[in-house]
Amino acid sequence: MSDAAKQLIGTAMTSASVPKPFAAYAPSNIALSKYWGKRDHARNLPLNSSLSISLADWGSHTQVSPSDDGQDHVTLGGKELALDTPFAAKALRFADLFRTHAASAPLRIDTNNTIPTAAGLASSASGFAALTRAICGCFGLTETLSEAQMSLIARLGSGSATRSFWHGFVRWDKGTREDGADSFAHPLDLNWPEFRIAILPVDVGPKSQSSRDGMNHTVVTSPLFNSWPDQAEADCAAIESAIKEQDFETLGPLVEANALAMHATMQAARPALTYLTSESWTLLERLWRARQDGLRAFATMDAGANIKLIFLKQAATDVMEIFPQAQMIDPFSKP
Amino acid sequence: MSDAAKQLIGTAMTSASVPKPFAAYAPSNIALSKYWGKRDHARNLPLNSSLSISLADWGSHTQVSPSDDGQDHVTLGGKELALDTPFAAKALRFADLFRTHAASAPLRIDTNNTIPTAAGLASSASGFAALTRAICGCFGLTETLSEAQMSLIARLGSGSATRSFWHGFVRWDKGTREDGADSFAHPLDLNWPEFRIAILPVDVGPKSQSSRDGMNHTVVTSPLFNSWPDQAEADCAAIESAIKEQDFETLGPLVEANALAMHATMQAARPALTYLTSESWTLLERLWRARQDGLRAFATMDAGANIKLIFLKQAATDVMEIFPQAQMIDPFSKP
Repeated sequence: MSDAAKQLIGTAMTSASVPKPFAAYAPSNIALSKYWGKRDHARNLPLNSSLSISLADWGSHTQVSPSDDGQDHVTLGGKELALDTPFAAKALRFADLFRTHAASAPLRIDTNNTIPTAAGLASSASGFAALTRAICGCFGLTETLSEAQMSLIARLGSGSATRSFWHGFVRWDKGTREDGADSFAHPLDLNWPEFRIAILPVDVGPKSQSSRDGMNHTVVTSPLFNSWPDQAEADCAAIESAIKEQDFETLGPLVEANALAMHATMQAARPALTYLTSESWTLLERLWRARQDGLRAFATMDAGANIKLIFLKQAATDVMEIFPQAQMIDPFSKP
Repeated sequence: MSDAAKQLIGTAMTSASVPKPFAAYAPSNIALSKYWGKRDHARNLPLNSSLSISLADWGSHTQVSPSDDGQDHVTLGGKELALDTPFAAKALRFADLFRTHAASAPLRIDTNNTIPTAAGLASSASGFAALTRAICGCFGLTETLSEAQMSLIARLGSGSATRSFWHGFVRWDKGTREDGADSFAHPLDLNWPEFRIAILPVDVGPKSQSSRDGMNHTVVTSPLFNSWPDQAEADCAAIESAIKEQDFETLGPLVEANALAMHATMQAARPALTYLTSESWTLLERLWRARQDGLRAFATMDAGANIKLIFLKQAATDVMEIFPQAQMIDPFSKP
């Protein structure tokens, strides 16, 4: 079956220029309406649309350059990686999508993530978005390919990377086509300067299951999953409306309910998949008590133990007082 | 619409004798396959069958006698209650189902629960079962009505009371009839002397939502609930099979998965319904770690924060070491 992303790359690469160094940046993002479950594993095609907020200057800086010694090189945070480490192998496998069309082009891929380690956020979304931009730049394709097209291509690396090509609110339409031609993201193109995010880091001991594996386990074994895709699609539409109306009192409860429903589908998987730990629940209980006392902040949680809060500027002081460990992000103060 | 329980009472009461004091006992029970969701609120008709283990000498002793001063009296634990307290009002409303057929018969209802307060278990199951037995005895109906018929009648007081008429494993068939004539319990009639239960009490501050309200909120608002009834019915059948084969390694994971799925339906309700607290999750995490180290014990949780464990006799020492607060029950050492 044809793949829209590979076709795009193939067409674009017919006009590729000689590789030259190109540096790109992509912000990380947090889904306010979650992506959970795939309809196609090879293409990372989702069962439902999702909507995220980008994390401004928390993201990935990636430079792709022609290698000067005929060998591929991958560095992360300034450190050269063996090519069979998971990070290097994934980056090069993604680069190979372009290189099947170019004369064998050894590359150097240098990545620096600016996400604080303590925040414990995955960097695959910003990583694959920045890598896509940088490879396209390296081969001289930034005029040929639009950001929407790059979003579609980045999907092959990581589903959530589709949403990391823009700042602010971004929606990834699930699409319906088998080849994935209509499954990419677009920005909502609105400013909400008062909108804030805080990350509440939660220590987890052993590495939890990857979101890729967790998603699959849930889809295959959770008796409650079959109700999720329709609800997630409805939530995504309602969350988009609330954002467009800047109606935080509608948005907050929807975002929290959507995240809890996603985690409920996992909790019902067999065996249960519990990314949230007792410490996560302690933080949620503190949030809910504070909300009874008037705090206007709501939680969202991904495939990990961290709690992320959304709130408006006027609640920032209270949030910091109740959660001194919070790492605050102002998503509309562009870097 | 006719009600099978009321019809049974009506027919039986035509042969009622003069009220005389009658004392009855009923054990509490813990569902291993959960009841969550009603198809008929007035009749407490469930959307799915359920299966429980009775708690031996943890239960309710109730005596019903003719009152000697022409007034109703209700005592609980030896203390006389005002007739408008919730406990007294519920007991008398239930007694009224019988008294519509008798000459106005003022009654004295004395209840003593033997469930340790620290165990934090609800007593409505054993309470309504013991009350049903005692009222039937008071009116001389114990020969007229079978235990299955009393189970059907007790359903009008509390759904889970249907399962408290026997020791050991008991199954409540959901039934399909509108009048509830086929919705009552029967014992599995097998001994499993090694089977053990432990209650791990969890402190909760303010009273959590009643299971009646919680159930309704979940059915009405949880987008994941519609997948529950079929799964619960399948779980109930699988759990019954595992019990009949005394196959603990099949039973344990099924019981735990069934409970987590029920709680997942609540967590997805809008707003979320979370009977489990961070302390509950701490206990579950401790259990899961112990299981990785070889402990064969599994958890089940109801409309409250407590964790209940099931295991076999040979794991009892380890359970007590890992959970020193555990209150152990030996359900087949009949009182």
